[in-house]
Amino acid sequence: MRNKVELIETLFNPKSIAIVGVSKTPGKIGHEIMSNIVKCGFRGPLYPISHKYAEVQDIRCYRSVLDVTDDVDLAILSTPEDYIPKALEELGAKGVKVVVVSSGRRGSPLVGRIADASKRYGMRVLGPSSLGIYYSKSKLNATPIPLSTEGRGVALISESKTLGISMVNYGLSEGIEFSTVIGTGAKADIDEQDLLEYLAEDDQVRSIVIHLETLRDPKAFTESLKNVLKRKPALLVTGSREIIKRLEPMKKELPILKDFTTALDLSAIFTDRRIEGRRALIVTNSSGASNLLIGSLEGTSIELAVLSEAFFDDIRMFVPEGSSSGNPLDLTSDVSPEIFRGVIEGSNMHSDEFDFILLVYCETNPMELDKLRTMLTELRDLVNKPLIPVLLGGDSVKRTVKELRKEGVPSYYSISRTVRALDSTVKHILASK
Amino acid sequence: MRNKVELIETLFNPKSIAIVGVSKTPGKIGHEIMSNIVKCGFRGPLYPISHKYAEVQDIRCYRSVLDVTDDVDLAILSTPEDYIPKALEELGAKGVKVVVVSSGRRGSPLVGRIADASKRYGMRVLGPSSLGIYYSKSKLNATPIPLSTEGRGVALISESKTLGISMVNYGLSEGIEFSTVIGTGAKADIDEQDLLEYLAEDDQVRSIVIHLETLRDPKAFTESLKNVLKRKPALLVTGSREIIKRLEPMKKELPILKDFTTALDLSAIFTDRRIEGRRALIVTNSSGASNLLIGSLEGTSIELAVLSEAFFDDIRMFVPEGSSSGNPLDLTSDVSPEIFRGVIEGSNMHSDEFDFILLVYCETNPMELDKLRTMLTELRDLVNKPLIPVLLGGDSVKRTVKELRKEGVPSYYSISRTVRALDSTVKHILASK
Repeated sequence: MRNKVELIETLFNPKSIAIVGVSKTPGKIGHEIMSNIVKCGFRGPLYPISHKYAEVQDIRCYRSVLDVTDDVDLAILSTPEDYIPKALEELGAKGVKVVVVSSGRRGSPLVGRIADASKRYGMRVLGPSSLGIYYSKSKLNATPIPLSTEGRGVALISESKTLGISMVNYGLSEGIEFSTVIGTGAKADIDEQDLLEYLAEDDQVRSIVIHLETLRDPKAFTESLKNVLKRKPALLVTGSREIIKRLEPMKKELPILKDFTTALDLSAIFTDRRIEGRRALIVTNSSGASNLLIGSLEGTSIELAVLSEAFFDDIRMFVPEGSSSGNPLDLTSDVSPEIFRGVIEGSNMHSDEFDFILLVYCETNPMELDKLRTMLTELRDLVNKPLIPVLLGGDSVKRTVKELRKEGVPSYYSISRTVRALDSTVKHILASK
Repeated sequence: MRNKVELIETLFNPKSIAIVGVSKTPGKIGHEIMSNIVKCGFRGPLYPISHKYAEVQDIRCYRSVLDVTDDVDLAILSTPEDYIPKALEELGAKGVKVVVVSSGRRGSPLVGRIADASKRYGMRVLGPSSLGIYYSKSKLNATPIPLSTEGRGVALISESKTLGISMVNYGLSEGIEFSTVIGTGAKADIDEQDLLEYLAEDDQVRSIVIHLETLRDPKAFTESLKNVLKRKPALLVTGSREIIKRLEPMKKELPILKDFTTALDLSAIFTDRRIEGRRALIVTNSSGASNLLIGSLEGTSIELAVLSEAFFDDIRMFVPEGSSSGNPLDLTSDVSPEIFRGVIEGSNMHSDEFDFILLVYCETNPMELDKLRTMLTELRDLVNKPLIPVLLGGDSVKRTVKELRKEGVPSYYSISRTVRALDSTVKHILASK
């Protein structure tokens, strides 16, 4: 009998892949998945299985997986639902280690039959109705979404396939990098516990976002989650009252959100350099904007840092005329990226007086915005405390926030979204101290 | 003595404009404002005033406003702060009716001197530190923001200049149309009351968003606001605890928000066809997404509509196999825009059973999205109840939401933002019944 945990390792790092249910029609899932596997740069052999075609995307097709002479580690199944049982029997007979079933509906009677085939053949199955698996480390993209991140990022586990696609595409449009995307679907075999343990050990995974609609084994899930949370921050996205109630006791360690946009906003702040307390230093070019921010802090866990006279003495030389000496530090609309840099570097000498810097910037000139972005990226590794830009404006600001996030600077373009993400983060950190 | 109210009419509809403090340097406010006045298509004579140049942007300059022989209705002042008092004296002597002072700082001792000049000459003054005025109806854009909307939209009154620029640019990037933008700045003379009365009568103004940091005359403001709210919906954006406390009694009629992104989200829903109750009909292609939405409705004023058997009988023919009969109506991921259309048209026969339709759509195919947009725009005027698309996905979804909003369909791309905007709207409507 094969080791169940070792087979999860195979799911993430297959040496060969068979694709059952390929298509030549762009837009069809069988076409998109195969095309993405090729584009992402998977290096092992690929075996498209088809009765219909001799080749697909210039790769030779086999009529059956049983015709493949070499070993097959992973199979992707995207045939119509009726063909799934027969296909699984062939994959089992071939000795395929792991199968991702991307077709089939959740709640279908098929789920039981798949579970049964999985047990009989000692073959691990992800799905049915799985979004597939994307794993940047092994250059594997067996999902219908064109993904190609290099390096570190969020790991997303999604129960819903359709919603999973929306979550990833939304995240990409907001500068969120994904290191891993996995669709659990109807969970005939593999479920969250199997995956969490593996992801917790992966140094490319910054944080884990889990979308849940059902829990097969709540006790096993919470046990596994508790272990994982010691090593990685995780967030839960669910609309299920039952699951929320069940996981309520873990709320302090595990933020539970009903919207994925909020969850991804929050994940942007879970970076290497973690926030360690509640005291904010606010630096701004607009008292109008910082007043809104301060108004929004009411009732949250965030506080304005109380700054010493020595602090103001050390930044005075950088500050333009007409600026206010206080927190927020209003540098007036005449501020330049150079002044911001001077003030932030000056503040750095007194970084024991605050826990993070919020740079609240209203865009009035797109050219300044580019200089600001360069400055923020350079400062990222020079300052002692996290520096969080809150840039306010239109398309150019949104573009800049996206670029900054990709460069590892947690950034926002909305006051309410900043405050919500920060408040959750600070609450979470204070609770786990 | 001139009539103070008639002069407000002149601010919105000047017949001639002088610009004091022009510049030939792109990016400088004196350059941008003049360039925007020209581009927006203002039809009256323009008089740039300059000691330095003989012409600017191909228009002849005058050394002093006193050299202009014709009448000057409106003057825009963007000189350095020190020159403002002398310039105002000349404008007063010339008999200019209204002055917009875009330079100068809020909180400067200059504010009193400007108020004084305004009184002495019977000349109305907007500012100092005013964002300027944009009024689509008279093709007037004396702001530094390139604006060019035709037709109806939000009217924004902003006290902060810098933040005002961010608010407008953010709104534009999200498909919000502005019919009017006015910066009150330090309010040496003209304040919110003067403007609200005029905007309430304007049929191109859909809703009014007011950003406030200070209130000169709280009693007069609330009186004026009460009158306006009988004719137009309005929203307040402020971070000031004092103002929030003062306007608390009006909270039911006037949503008060601490973030402008939320306020603009909310303004998108204040359209002609108003929501009249709390009962939502949800139609979706993703149970995953609609489950999140339903989870998010907990604790809000929104309820799921209870639908009759006759309702389901009349839509049955449009519904694909595997769909659930209930609310949410899950049409499965196989849904097409045609099926959505059939179901929505079928629902229309039973529109007494719900107050609005939420169409929750996870994007899996960009081509379908285009068809969906066309369908939604066509259905807009055919259905009896408001139809609110909630499209979930990445860049293509954001683009579609922007286009739909411009076509007058209130749309969203985030579940939490939809629920927040809808909840405020429904609360507001139920309170004013």
